This record gives sequence, structure tokens and C-alpha cells, in this order.
Amino acid sequence: MSSDPRIERALRASLTPALAPGHPPQLAAALLHAVFPGGARIRPKLTLAVAQACGEDDPALTDAAAAAIELLHCASLVHDDLPCFDDAETRRGRPSVHRAFGERLAVLAGDALIVAAFDVLGPAARRHLSRLPVLLRAITQGVGMPMGIVAGQAWECEPQLSLAEYQQAKTGALFAAATMAGAQAAGADGEPWRALGERLGQTYQVADDIRDVMLDAQALGKPGGQDVARDRPSYARALGLDGAMAEFQRLVQATLLTVPACPGAAQFRQLIRREADRLVPQHLCAQVAAAA
Amino acid sequence: MSSDPRIERALRASLTPALAPGHPPQLAAALLHAVFPGGARIRPKLTLAVAQACGEDDPALTDAAAAAIELLHCASLVHDDLPCFDDAETRRGRPSVHRAFGERLAVLAGDALIVAAFDVLGPAARRHLSRLPVLLRAITQGVGMPMGIVAGQAWECEPQLSLAEYQQAKTGALFAAATMAGAQAAGADGEPWRALGERLGQTYQVADDIRDVMLDAQALGKPGGQDVARDRPSYARALGLDGAMAEFQRLVQATLLTVPACPGAAQFRQLIRREADRLVPQHLCAQVAAAA
Repeated sequence: MSSDPRIERALRASLTPALAPGHPPQLAAALLHAVFPGGARIRPKLTLAVAQACGEDDPALTDAAAAAIELLHCASLVHDDLPCFDDAETRRGRPSVHRAFGERLAVLAGDALIVAAFDVLGPAARRHLSRLPVLLRAITQGVGMPMGIVAGQAWECEPQLSLAEYQQAKTGALFAAATMAGAQAAGADGEPWRALGERLGQTYQVADDIRDVMLDAQALGKPGGQDVARDRPSYARALGLDGAMAEFQRLVQATLLTVPACPGAAQFRQLIRREADRLVPQHLCAQVAAAA
Repeated sequence: MSSDPRIERALRASLTPALAPGHPPQLAAALLHAVFPGGARIRPKLTLAVAQACGEDDPALTDAAAAAIELLHCASLVHDDLPCFDDAETRRGRPSVHRAFGERLAVLAGDALIVAAFDVLGPAARRHLSRLPVLLRAITQGVGMPMGIVAGQAWECEPQLSLAEYQQAKTGALFAAATMAGAQAAGADGEPWRALGERLGQTYQVADDIRDVMLDAQALGKPGGQDVARDRPSYARALGLDGAMAEFQRLVQATLLTVPACPGAAQFRQLIRREADRLVPQHLCAQVAAAA
């Protein structure tokens, strides 16, 4: 999935207030480093796709919601990469923020990105103010306590955890926020899109675990084999690689069945199929099937 | 200034969604540790005082705004205390969050508190939805880039900084957000209250610098002498202790003159006088005058 100019524009616009004159220059550079160039931008693409499937009528609000989701995702990566968590040297093929700017600016960059995510929503909701509280709520639920990404990361600090709950919080919650926010930005009810987002998040997580085992650092843009190295829960570790592959295929099919009825449902299913093949290419599945 | 039951109630209510069933227990404990028991709660008290001075008509919204401001203040303390910044062992006379729960949960607790601050505003704005965007904006400006507390902290990472700009971002910005949010929660214009908040923040910062030099760890609830130990900019270091005392008195007088015309102006000035005496008690001023 290549980068979408609309998302890049929305992200640049969302950081414009933060980069207004008077800012501390290194933190500004750290924010830009954390957000550009991006990864697959899968979450904001989902937000846009759902908004379009729901009959988008306020593109500025969709853009703001998509940007907010991606800024929060970038913030979580910056903090996850910190020495006290993954101590990742690289991210997206470049030095991680704390390697490039130091640990202090990495903590602050994550904080500033969280604040920027909420800053972008208010002005964009001018035309449809009644959509602002539901958007805010969907997004805070995806990120914060009790079951957003921050909670997911915190489960890594607990002596016992359930893999499903951990993955749901760490990944599913922000995917659910991405799909719900897309619907809400278009004036539709977000709730029917929650289960779809959660399932997509789970699918993505299984794919990520498979990729962590199968791909090398160059293909990933970050070190591989981290789940074992960090003793982190992983579908590939829990189910074996062939089991994880089967689970991935099962989840993709289940996800396709969860798409709510809406004008753009067919196009939306196509997007999911394309994304599934990008994440776990068919030749990898064939390799594993041959070895099993 | 003793604790206000209304503020404590508002803070407990603001964390209720975050502490709903399903949360990771250690992170929940870390959030509570970061927020309760509090310090002077000076920022949310300001929010309440300004709302009342402006003819408060929606106490639930004032409570939410005050809680949001204090949660963001607590978040900044948790992150400021991290090993990569101040490496503070204690805060408010107890172990700092990272000492009590570890560095990872301290990073996450700060993040979760920032998100909780924005989570509390949407539902509370139900009755007066048009106040939500201005409240959001005032609060994000107080915390984020380019000139909120995150920016202030980032100036500590720059090779050169101006003391006034640094202090304005590190302290003045959230004070300005506290006063503006009080006015906005009451349906009044926030702008006339910005300068007052900034000046109050400056007054508070000078007082804090004086207290860092003059009071011992027991009275402060945190280690004293940190500005010199950390080579941090400080009014007491820049102006000398007697110069800082004179500046404090000058700022208190200037602040009293900045109170916008409003029904509760007299009561509001009284609050400022009481708070000034709490921060830098008269007997300290007398000691310094005698020594100079």
C-alpha cells in the first residue's frame, strides 16, 4: 500500500500549529522525524476508506480524524522504541527518535504528538460540531485507559496477561478508533464499525507477528526477531508459524464478512484484500505450507 | 491553600472511565499515585475561581476543565521526574511514579493522563457544545507545541534559551490555559484572562525558584537545590535571592492589576494575595531582607 497524498497533506496540516514560530527547534525536528516519512499509514487509510464508504460529506473533518489517529500511532511508536521498552535502534529504516534526538526529546515528542492529535479535531469540527464529542470519545478509547494502546503496552509490565486482551488493547483498539472515526466524521454511527476495526487490528497483529519471524531487518525497516528477543507474547510463538498463517487467513475471511452494509462496501472489501496480500504475501504462505 | 473537595471529586470522576473494568492493574495504580494525594492544586483552583468570577453557569463543565488542567499538570510531573530528566526520587513527599512503579509504567502513566484529560471534556460539554472547541484549543496550547509545557521542557534540551521564554512555556502556558478555561467553561471569552494566567505563572515560577533555594526537602516534598544541581535556569540564580524576592513582590502587585473587570474581581484578588503568602511566607522575605 503506497502513501496517499491526501493523508500526507492532512498530516502536514495537523502539525502546522505545533511548528508555528517560537517552537524549540530540536523538538520540532523530532516530531517531523517521527511522522515523516511514514510507514504504510494503514490506520488513516482505514479512516478515509470508512468515511468514503459511509458517504463522506465533510472531507476536512475526515482528514483531521485520520491525522489524529496517525499522530497517536506515531506517538506510540516513539514511546515503544524508548530504551526502557524495546530500545529499538531503527524504525522505518532510519534511526528511532531516541537514537536520533536523545531519550528526553523522544519522551517529549511522544507527548507533543498526543496533544497535537487532539488539537487538530476542534477547528476541523466547525461545520459539524455535534460530531466532535463522539470523535473525541472514540479516539481517547483507542489510545488511553482502560483498553487502548497505552493499556496494551502496560499489560507487558504485568506478570500475567491474556494474549487476546493484550493484542486487542495494543493494536485492535486503535484500529477500532480508526474505523469508528471514519464513520463518525461522515456523520454515521461509529458503533457498527467497532467490531470490524477490532478484527482488522487482530489480523494486522497476526501478520506483524508472522513478519517479525519471517522477514529480515531490511524488509521490516526495524530489527526482526524482537518478540522472542524481548520475550513478548506473539501469535507466531503461541501457534507456530503455520498455525499463525492459518489464523491470518481465517481472520481475513472473517473480516470481509464483518463489513457493515453501506454504499461503498464492495470497494472497502477490495482494500482489505489488497492490504492482506501486502502484509503477508502469497509466496510466504506457500513457503510455510511447503515446509509444514 | 488546602485541598478543595470539589476539585478532588472532579479529579476522581475524571479518572473513572480510565479505571473501568479490564484495565491493567499496575498502570491504574500508577495513575492514582500520580494524581492522589495532590499538591496545592493551584491550577484547577484557578480554573474554578475564574469560572466563578465570570458567573459560572455550568459547574460540570468547569469541573471537567479544572480536572483536565490538573491531569495534564500531573502528567508533566511524572515525565519530568523520569531518569532521563530530573531522575527525582520523591514527589509530594512520596516516591516518584518511576521509583514506585518503574520507568515503563511512568512513561505510560504520563501518556494515559494526557489522554484522560481530553477524554473528560467531551461528555461534560453536552449542555454547551459550542464551548468545547475553544476549551480544547486553550488546553492544547497550554500543553503542546509550540509554546506549552512540552515545549518548555524541550527548551532544556537546547544549547541556548531565554529564561523568560523558557519559564513562559514551562509554567506560564498552563496557568494561562487554567484561567482561560475557567472563563470559557462559564461561556465567557478566554482571551482577557490569558495575560493574567501568564503573569500568575511567572509569579509562581519565581516563587518556586526561591523555594528551591530556601526550603529544605521536607518542606518542599521533593529534593531542594535542584536548579543548581541540574544546572537549570532559575530566577534565584539569575537575580540573586534578594533580587528574586523583589521580583516576586513586583509580580504579585502587577498580577493584581491585571484581573479583568468581572463580578467576582475582588474575591479573585483576595485569592491571589492568600496564595502569594502561602508560596513565599512573609518571614522568608524578612530573613532575606535582613541578610542583604
